[in-house]
Amino acid sequence: MPELLAEDAFAPYGRVIDADFDRSHLINDGRTRRFHALARAEPGEGGEAILSIFRGTPWPAPIEIRMLERHPLGAQAFVPMERHPWLVVVAERPEAAACRCFLARGDQGVQIARGVWHHPLLVLQPMQDFLVVDRAGPGNNLEEVFFVDGDWARIAPV
Amino acid sequence: MPELLAEDAFAPYGRVIDADFDRSHLINDGRTRRFHALARAEPGEGGEAILSIFRGTPWPAPIEIRMLERHPLGAQAFVPMERHPWLVVVAERPEAAACRCFLARGDQGVQIARGVWHHPLLVLQPMQDFLVVDRAGPGNNLEEVFFVDGDWARIAPV
Repeated sequence: MPELLAEDAFAPYGRVIDADFDRSHLINDGRTRRFHALARAEPGEGGEAILSIFRGTPWPAPIEIRMLERHPLGAQAFVPMERHPWLVVVAERPEAAACRCFLARGDQGVQIARGVWHHPLLVLQPMQDFLVVDRAGPGNNLEEVFFVDGDWARIAPV
Repeated sequence: MPELLAEDAFAPYGRVIDADFDRSHLINDGRTRRFHALARAEPGEGGEAILSIFRGTPWPAPIEIRMLERHPLGAQAFVPMERHPWLVVVAERPEAAACRCFLARGDQGVQIARGVWHHPLLVLQPMQDFLVVDRAGPGNNLEEVFFVDGDWARIAPV
């Protein structure tokens, strides 16, 4: 079963991007509240931060976690462009037994820290768009590990 | 009346961030479409790109454009976190007569280029959240110009 996404629980893997009142102040003559610097882009040495949209479609349920990937050169942030819940699978080691699954609210994004193992985007609706802030630049920024057949983590239907 | 937001019309002021099929490709075993590098964060010399949430509340209609601001040191991107339309007011010169108003769809963000005059966030719902990618770092990154009393641009109700 997925855990609810919260800052403390997610801290080993990165940051939660949501409207944390304690990090906010009013701007624009009081008409806008700025939840400030929830994450830094961290594109890494020689890289630059770019903005892209990821349009995800769901894996069949129960979701089988057959592989993980990581980006050794830069952080990667995902922020929903619609208010639908979604899933974040992360792991301290690239092993099925190490996988943790978080259920994010539709108003919560995450930034996965540089080098943290994670599963590609997992959505629950037929189509969900995310703004992604990640690294462009020289070097190989993708590593993948595929689990052996049958040694998969499974996520129960949400 | 606002103009519809489109890439060509907005080009003098910055970039439109939306799901432009021509800039997309499939990733994640075909389950995700990546609309790639729609904008570069461009935090400028000595700055870094940060991620914040802006929670906007509306100005009363008809909206009076009484001032403009600009960020001389870095670009600033706004991407809706909900599918509600919103308004973008930009100007080539800091004068009421130079203001142009664009109506953005709820699935369209913009990046306002470094140094471009614009009005603070203009939303149409009681509360609308945006992911903002802009610059943190040393130096003064805010200039404001206030129009003289009565010399305001007005935006008709949408």
